[in-house]
Amino acid sequence: MPEPVAIGVDVGGTKLVAATVAPDGTLLERRRQGTPAGDVGRLIDTVCDVVSELGDDLPVGIGIAGLVDARGVVRYGPNIGVRDLPLAQTLSQRLGRHVTVKNDATTAAYGEHRAGAAGAAQDVIMLTLGTGVGGGVIVGGRVVEGASGFAAELGHLIVHEGGRVCPCGNRGCLEAYASGTAIGLMARERLVDRDITSRLRDVGELDGKAVTTAALAGDAFAREVLQEAGTWLGVGMATLVNALDPQMIVIGGGAAIEAAEWVIPAARAAMVPRLLGSDVRTPPEVVHATLSDDAGMIGAAFLALEEAA
Amino acid sequence: MPEPVAIGVDVGGTKLVAATVAPDGTLLERRRQGTPAGDVGRLIDTVCDVVSELGDDLPVGIGIAGLVDARGVVRYGPNIGVRDLPLAQTLSQRLGRHVTVKNDATTAAYGEHRAGAAGAAQDVIMLTLGTGVGGGVIVGGRVVEGASGFAAELGHLIVHEGGRVCPCGNRGCLEAYASGTAIGLMARERLVDRDITSRLRDVGELDGKAVTTAALAGDAFAREVLQEAGTWLGVGMATLVNALDPQMIVIGGGAAIEAAEWVIPAARAAMVPRLLGSDVRTPPEVVHATLSDDAGMIGAAFLALEEAA
Repeated sequence: MPEPVAIGVDVGGTKLVAATVAPDGTLLERRRQGTPAGDVGRLIDTVCDVVSELGDDLPVGIGIAGLVDARGVVRYGPNIGVRDLPLAQTLSQRLGRHVTVKNDATTAAYGEHRAGAAGAAQDVIMLTLGTGVGGGVIVGGRVVEGASGFAAELGHLIVHEGGRVCPCGNRGCLEAYASGTAIGLMARERLVDRDITSRLRDVGELDGKAVTTAALAGDAFAREVLQEAGTWLGVGMATLVNALDPQMIVIGGGAAIEAAEWVIPAARAAMVPRLLGSDVRTPPEVVHATLSDDAGMIGAAFLALEEAA
Repeated sequence: MPEPVAIGVDVGGTKLVAATVAPDGTLLERRRQGTPAGDVGRLIDTVCDVVSELGDDLPVGIGIAGLVDARGVVRYGPNIGVRDLPLAQTLSQRLGRHVTVKNDATTAAYGEHRAGAAGAAQDVIMLTLGTGVGGGVIVGGRVVEGASGFAAELGHLIVHEGGRVCPCGNRGCLEAYASGTAIGLMARERLVDRDITSRLRDVGELDGKAVTTAALAGDAFAREVLQEAGTWLGVGMATLVNALDPQMIVIGGGAAIEAAEWVIPAARAAMVPRLLGSDVRTPPEVVHATLSDDAGMIGAAFLALEEAA
């Protein structure tokens, strides 16, 4: 078994996963816990316990759901229930080693870049479809973090000013059209039309997962809804490609991958004609993520390794 | 007088300007010609003549209106009337020295970064409002050119999918709401309402320039139209800030600067509430460009200098 080179931790709204990572990105030893959301003291204790179990002196990288600034302060993490938490500093002191803290979509994008779908591509955009829509931007092989560490909030590209309400409070954000939550809402709204036949009429909790399940079982209406979300995703992708011209776009998130058959072709079909000079350029490849829920841990570990170097 | 370090050339749809550039970005000796649009042979002769007059051995940088790939091929330059023109290679052979060719909005952004409004900021977005809307993206002090050199086509962020028709053929692009052309069109459409009083009713050619002139002369309706365009610009800026989190946004283009009093505050007011975590972050500074039409030459010269180094 190869020696681990770093520890990666992924702190989500409900679960906290961690692992030691080999030089090629393989996960060696894993841990999994519930996230003590809303209890900062227990959150920090949990991370310290898990990390100490995994190794005494390996660099530690953490991806966390929230806005993280350049100094590793979690400025705003509604899903974890934290605000203005100097996580990198607190953990570095407690663990006696350098700890890197980044946004979880950033770490996932970096994981796919270093060890997953993006292969050797140096300019990559990752879009992660889950409850919300997250993202990561890699330019010239480096993660773009922005002036204050708030870059790559790609769920909040405004694709239809004045349109659907987004959980962030604005209207027309990509997240309001392409997240799991949005997919569920769009299905519910369209079912007001009594002429539509769909097994989704009998589903208790009509969320994105239910739509994907129905699509997989052959439901034509559910497939249409996923294609509509994919079309909106493609509009957001066109904006990103016109701005950044990446070689590759990686689509991640469990639901997106299960529904990839409907979402990705629709996204690609919407994107291509919306690119400037679409007749003279090669559009970026659109692929799906390959590391699944491990991408965040792997990316966090590699980012920690680089900061420690 | 300081010694020149490079030659910068800016090839637009109607005029071609060139100058020798000092280490601090000052222009020393200038040339100005009509652009022989649509005649590739004469275009190349003109550039060679101008450059040879300005200096025998200085590195040459060219900014040109069009899509330029990473090898300096002008893939698509409708305003100049060229397509798939290997300009960098052709000029390098003719002039016997390395010639750098980039998109003109990219060179202008780099000029403002190195010697103009952006000062020492390392993460900067430039938006240039003219006949169309152009842009430049600087991340970590480097111009983002993208995988094929097509990055920063910021006029084609899609801000309102399905909305106004853009000259590119798509709908809802930022350019369809915030360019000089769009400002003229929006004014004309609103004047269908006979209750509106405005001196613009008596204007022969109702373009962006006419709207700006009327606004400067006190026309309330013209000011409203400029504010509307500014609001849309702010929507595009919010998308860019949510994606890239720059320290600074530089607004350029002659018309935008004359109309800055109405365009920039409206853009800023629209942008700020649309930023994710707007209550916990400092929004980027929004400034106007300071180098005017010289930015492209200066940026092209600096880019050439760096490529030559």
